[in-house]
Amino acid sequence: MTMLKGNLMFGQSGGPTSVINASAAGVFIEALKHADVIEKVYGAANGIVGILNEKFYDIGEEDPAELELLKYTPSSSLGSCRYKLANADVDDTDYKRILEVFKKYNIRYFFYNGGNDSMDTCNKISKFMQKSGYDCRVMGVPKTIDNDLFGTDHCPGFSSAAKYIATTTMEVYQDARVYDTGMICVIEVMGRHAGWLTAATRLASEKGAGPDLIYLPEVPFDLDQMLADVKAIYAKTGKVIIAVSEGVQTKDGKFIPELVATDDVAVDSFGHKQLGGTATVLADYLKKETGSKVRGIELSLMQRCASHCASKSDYEESFLAGQTAVLKAIEGLTDYMVGFERADSSEYACQIKLIPLNDVANTEKKVPLEWINKEGNFVNEEYVKYALPLIIGETEQPKEDGLPRFAHLKKVLVNKK
Amino acid sequence: MTMLKGNLMFGQSGGPTSVINASAAGVFIEALKHADVIEKVYGAANGIVGILNEKFYDIGEEDPAELELLKYTPSSSLGSCRYKLANADVDDTDYKRILEVFKKYNIRYFFYNGGNDSMDTCNKISKFMQKSGYDCRVMGVPKTIDNDLFGTDHCPGFSSAAKYIATTTMEVYQDARVYDTGMICVIEVMGRHAGWLTAATRLASEKGAGPDLIYLPEVPFDLDQMLADVKAIYAKTGKVIIAVSEGVQTKDGKFIPELVATDDVAVDSFGHKQLGGTATVLADYLKKETGSKVRGIELSLMQRCASHCASKSDYEESFLAGQTAVLKAIEGLTDYMVGFERADSSEYACQIKLIPLNDVANTEKKVPLEWINKEGNFVNEEYVKYALPLIIGETEQPKEDGLPRFAHLKKVLVNKK
Repeated sequence: MTMLKGNLMFGQSGGPTSVINASAAGVFIEALKHADVIEKVYGAANGIVGILNEKFYDIGEEDPAELELLKYTPSSSLGSCRYKLANADVDDTDYKRILEVFKKYNIRYFFYNGGNDSMDTCNKISKFMQKSGYDCRVMGVPKTIDNDLFGTDHCPGFSSAAKYIATTTMEVYQDARVYDTGMICVIEVMGRHAGWLTAATRLASEKGAGPDLIYLPEVPFDLDQMLADVKAIYAKTGKVIIAVSEGVQTKDGKFIPELVATDDVAVDSFGHKQLGGTATVLADYLKKETGSKVRGIELSLMQRCASHCASKSDYEESFLAGQTAVLKAIEGLTDYMVGFERADSSEYACQIKLIPLNDVANTEKKVPLEWINKEGNFVNEEYVKYALPLIIGETEQPKEDGLPRFAHLKKVLVNKK
Repeated sequence: MTMLKGNLMFGQSGGPTSVINASAAGVFIEALKHADVIEKVYGAANGIVGILNEKFYDIGEEDPAELELLKYTPSSSLGSCRYKLANADVDDTDYKRILEVFKKYNIRYFFYNGGNDSMDTCNKISKFMQKSGYDCRVMGVPKTIDNDLFGTDHCPGFSSAAKYIATTTMEVYQDARVYDTGMICVIEVMGRHAGWLTAATRLASEKGAGPDLIYLPEVPFDLDQMLADVKAIYAKTGKVIIAVSEGVQTKDGKFIPELVATDDVAVDSFGHKQLGGTATVLADYLKKETGSKVRGIELSLMQRCASHCASKSDYEESFLAGQTAVLKAIEGLTDYMVGFERADSSEYACQIKLIPLNDVANTEKKVPLEWINKEGNFVNEEYVKYALPLIIGETEQPKEDGLPRFAHLKKVLVNKK
């Protein structure tokens, strides 16, 4: 083990989750124990943007009890960003600036917490530091409700979102069938390219209170076929629940809002189309086509921040991922993302696995096509076997007056050098 | 005490809540203990509609353990309706039919569970039975997330919805401010005429994670003023969270979707305008006017069915309301709604109070104007004192595989005579 003394920089990036701060807690609480190696622990304000702007917090100033509460506090407490680094071969301005900041503040440990785009950022920084001969141990800490990171059994953040989605679907199922009239309900779930989250509604079906139809982005979407599917079930029972991913596309690459609406779809800074309105648009369409009562429900931000309904294993594993990044980096490892491998046991258990950042960056893991029925409108038992163990166990989130007690950080800014 | 032997009919009506079935559990479990007086316990399928159609379930056939689980099962397990009875003086067809059914099945106890419209129905039936000289003890069991029933400190269903709304607002607050860009978030809450639920977002502000602006239907809504309010806060902090009731109206009686959209607003069978889309419409408007990123969030059905986030006192009191209806009716009382009176103690406690159905029917209780600030865009400490004690205490909902274990009723239909 080569001892590398210096400071640590941790940043959060991309869309937040219910448990992203549990990873921050893991990094911070573990790092603060190793003052002999890691002298200062910094948290970047708004991820890479905070580094570029030399805006970061001194975590050593925080109350340890509040850092513990980060485990149960949803969303990115340090602030997040969606900043995309250029290819260093084309434009290395940002990289040089990051190197300059790292040198100025003696950053020798850099951990970045995020999904696909963030692991790409992390990988690019790691490679640039290596190329520059600057000794900095870089680790990716995974986070994404989308569950689409390569090489890991699942991603921190997914299990809690899945638990919230399955729970809420069960509740909506009860509600959507109380009247003696027909009812169609469209539940829109997040997920641009991967259907892991939308498929979580299937867990509600396992309990007899889930959707009749599930449409994932892994399968080309056909509006006419969906209408036929809905009409067939409606004719039998008068009640239809549809779970649909915001990201489903026709074989010509059109999203639902583009199919039935005329507005242009906005694009974010990563070039991703800003979707939304799928439930509303589809509900309006089904109302017109069937004459039935239809309700569109968008699970919106709630599905990624409902920490009151977090999965126990999820915040424990998120914490562990952060903690492991620190321990492995101190041991001398670099250029990896922390991942999970599921034990081959009847009881659910996962162990840590390290995946080279190169393998992770920008590779998307999708729901296996064998887990989707051949009609492309439901998910089979294989998905249940995979996902159900992840949502078992309730949160121990502390409450105050019946409401969650979130961490209150002081966020003491480090003086610019 | 005059002993009245016969059968019991219980019906659920109006929009369901997270704890409406807890009242059903209270009625059923208590009634089944009094077989000497109450020979058969029936549950009407879809409220009054089930009575008119002679469609009801024999609750004695249910597994007692499943009846216990009703406490934690959201939505109306028997099915609900929004059927409006005519004025008996104008058209007594339905009343005669109900009397006929009651006589045929020897119904001597009739309990109706619902909100304002349902208490009106209950009152009308009670008066018709009296006028007809048919001895039937009628009790209203309150239920409404809207909290707008007259004569009771609060309504079963409200506390759980308030807890979910406050919790979710706190979580959304965390999520809506993670990026280093401006963000406006509009949270749409249910409530046609009373702002009790929308005001529950104020509880999140009490914890430092709530809305900046709260618009209730008690105060005339002014779109220009709201825009000015939003711009003023946005200019200071770059982040604005707005809680708005679906029912806010301008002084000319226009709802938000009517203000900024051209579509006609649908009307339900009670003549209530079918609102919705307020968050979307307002978000689009604010996006256009401010150029900022804006997200509209509709809490939709979740706010009334999120039993996983129910308030402990709420399901306990809902159960108690049902139980009390049985006990008081056996004692000989009739023509009342069961309500609650808050004890004048530092620790929260409520005791039962009986309110004549005549007083309750169609009287709406609104948020006192003194609890709303003079700008009409926030709620003061008085509301917090009122509502915060109601949401303390967590649900003991049993879980199975990390998901709620709802009651499974057999729903054995009673043979038509």
